[in-house]
Amino acid sequence: MAEHVYIRDIAAHVGETVTLKGWLYNKTDKGRLQFLLVRDGTGIIQAVVFRKEVSPEVFEDARRVTQESSVIVTGVVREDARAPGKPGGYELGVSDFQIFQLAEEYPIAPKEHGVGFLMEHRHLWLRSAQQNAILLVRAEIVRAIREWLDTHGFVNCDTPILTPTSCEDTTSLFETDYFGTPAYLTQSGQLYNEATIMSLGRVYCFGPTFRAEKSKTRRHLTEFWMVEPEMAWADLDECMRIEEEFVSHIVQSVLKNRAAELKELERDTTALERIAPPFPRISYTEAVKALNEKGVEITWGDDFGAPHETALGEMFDKPVFVHRYPARCKAFYMEVDPADPQLSLSVDLIAPEGFGEIIGGGQRTASLELLEERIRQYKLPREAYQWYIDLRRYGAVPHSGFGLGVERTVAWLCNLPHIRETIPFPRMLERIYP
Amino acid sequence: MAEHVYIRDIAAHVGETVTLKGWLYNKTDKGRLQFLLVRDGTGIIQAVVFRKEVSPEVFEDARRVTQESSVIVTGVVREDARAPGKPGGYELGVSDFQIFQLAEEYPIAPKEHGVGFLMEHRHLWLRSAQQNAILLVRAEIVRAIREWLDTHGFVNCDTPILTPTSCEDTTSLFETDYFGTPAYLTQSGQLYNEATIMSLGRVYCFGPTFRAEKSKTRRHLTEFWMVEPEMAWADLDECMRIEEEFVSHIVQSVLKNRAAELKELERDTTALERIAPPFPRISYTEAVKALNEKGVEITWGDDFGAPHETALGEMFDKPVFVHRYPARCKAFYMEVDPADPQLSLSVDLIAPEGFGEIIGGGQRTASLELLEERIRQYKLPREAYQWYIDLRRYGAVPHSGFGLGVERTVAWLCNLPHIRETIPFPRMLERIYP
Repeated sequence: MAEHVYIRDIAAHVGETVTLKGWLYNKTDKGRLQFLLVRDGTGIIQAVVFRKEVSPEVFEDARRVTQESSVIVTGVVREDARAPGKPGGYELGVSDFQIFQLAEEYPIAPKEHGVGFLMEHRHLWLRSAQQNAILLVRAEIVRAIREWLDTHGFVNCDTPILTPTSCEDTTSLFETDYFGTPAYLTQSGQLYNEATIMSLGRVYCFGPTFRAEKSKTRRHLTEFWMVEPEMAWADLDECMRIEEEFVSHIVQSVLKNRAAELKELERDTTALERIAPPFPRISYTEAVKALNEKGVEITWGDDFGAPHETALGEMFDKPVFVHRYPARCKAFYMEVDPADPQLSLSVDLIAPEGFGEIIGGGQRTASLELLEERIRQYKLPREAYQWYIDLRRYGAVPHSGFGLGVERTVAWLCNLPHIRETIPFPRMLERIYP
Repeated sequence: MAEHVYIRDIAAHVGETVTLKGWLYNKTDKGRLQFLLVRDGTGIIQAVVFRKEVSPEVFEDARRVTQESSVIVTGVVREDARAPGKPGGYELGVSDFQIFQLAEEYPIAPKEHGVGFLMEHRHLWLRSAQQNAILLVRAEIVRAIREWLDTHGFVNCDTPILTPTSCEDTTSLFETDYFGTPAYLTQSGQLYNEATIMSLGRVYCFGPTFRAEKSKTRRHLTEFWMVEPEMAWADLDECMRIEEEFVSHIVQSVLKNRAAELKELERDTTALERIAPPFPRISYTEAVKALNEKGVEITWGDDFGAPHETALGEMFDKPVFVHRYPARCKAFYMEVDPADPQLSLSVDLIAPEGFGEIIGGGQRTASLELLEERIRQYKLPREAYQWYIDLRRYGAVPHSGFGLGVERTVAWLCNLPHIRETIPFPRMLERIYP
């Protein structure tokens, strides 16, 4: 057997005999010529089996091989501008071909399937060129997130998943029995980040978070991944400055390193090329005015829903910061605006093209008095928050942070109308299999 | 206020007036001279306040400031080889000093505290120089893990936390109500990795995993982080080759990028400098023989416990591979050894210096027949594993993978006798707060 190479590296082997290991993606039977499209996870290539060039047994195997069978193909790499595939432009002149396992009839045929059927076969659907491209964009988003943070003074500091209290919405918690006491799956690592910044200055946590929401929308999962940077000695303005640098880096990394995948997804990249600092900034009050002028009704004091976010996003060709929401729209830990105590020093970042909110964040209160008051107002269990209150007793600092949802970012960059395809195995109200 | 700089960058500012923002770590009162040790998460520096050089108000603040108060210090950076701190060798000649928040009496005094007290105050304990160093080593381990995998053809592919079935030990699952049906917190992403390799070739998942074990040992947490690479078309030998490259990269990255932290932890680094491929390989059968010869009794067919792992680790000065355990010691999905069907193509990696198993892995079965038989033998719910069985119907391939525990790796590299200090907020049998 010749050297095993990956299809992504095929251009370096023109004229050489190599071995590929992968799966049969598709085939065309032209009698004495069998055109096999072989994929190996890193690309797709056309392998040409010519009856005269192989043994009768090999030719028979090439003829009978079924979709998604696992195969080992040896041949010479040839340049051919017309050859389909990814990267394309190369084909393999086959000298040997082995079937490792002959696949049963593959349930996902080229015909159209309903979403329910595809979700039930998610473990197989992931092999399609489109889903493969989405997975690769997602991995690049994760890589770019960590690259930027690791090189800008942020320390990765894991926060717990099992927690004795909720961070935000107490009505949408997954509960488990923790050796006799109730525990909850985290909705955010932020409160813990506020402790670790006091050891490390700037930190981020990055892990799965959970919301037991009984809603079926195209923007919600019950389990989703969130990166949450938090910064000591940073105010709301610094928070927005960091966010726009961070998001721009993610978008530009995907454009640079996942061009082939964006093409596979038929993503119009001109809208993404514009994403660079600075991003527009409008206050909540200005946003309410703009929405009402556009005919999307909202009363000052109400939180935005999906239609408002969509409309706001469409007013700009970059992500837009909406800052200083009414304090009562936001969580108990938000700092109040010294210029107007009705307002919080909060900020959401809303994606363009109707993809909605991708970041929520802002400045957290440094005041022991305000925090104690809010814990009373929100009727939170004071005992469970004792450690969090301590952070205002021993060296409180002005501090800010935010959470970016990975799945919404994938949906935006891949131009996916529904969030269910942004994660390998989505968890939704009626979906926990496979 | 002068430019805000971080203590880690202090060497670039000698002779300049800068502002530091951080917390008071310690102080020495010498009358007209106040020596303040200030930390900011990136380092520690001595700030010298001389009565004649500041206003009476500033001097009074320097005199009264309490441990862990948040402070803003302005002054000129001076080189002084004797100056304590991290990096050390620099001090600040203070011209201005402000207290942002005067800390209440700090509960963690220099006196010795019991572990229970420190764990109850984990949110504050994390600020100590030792804990700060452990957090930084941990972050470097995570960064090095991803760096190596991202540059060696592995695609990060997240696997679900909420699952309808268990992967390994069905007796130690955390359960939650998923909208009316039971769901379990994942113990491993491996089964899902076996699906995604068929889209991507080589993948890894990296996230929290859970074991509801009612044991109190120094090597177990109920919530811990695990990285799990998985490779299509890879056998047991390739798996070991990848593991030794991977682990060596992690160790060498920590040595290179966290030297100051290893020094803070008084870690003897000579034992770590040796960690390079190849690692010794012994079979389970050879290991049993070696243990019995050393007087650590074990019967062939039994799994290793902590004393056996410790003894095995101490026989070598590098991590040691123990391969081909009896099939009955290992999980249902293991490939059998074609040379001896009693054995599985499994491999564990045992750290030196008594730190025990840090990796478990091996080759997974590609055979539909064997998998179906094992699912019957192990009495697993066949319906829930339908999708996993599918992977042997549609393009099965020889494949291997492994899981490396982050906390055990941190314990090893930081030389920590107990795993509880290897994660910011440990979850153990009797600990879910803070």
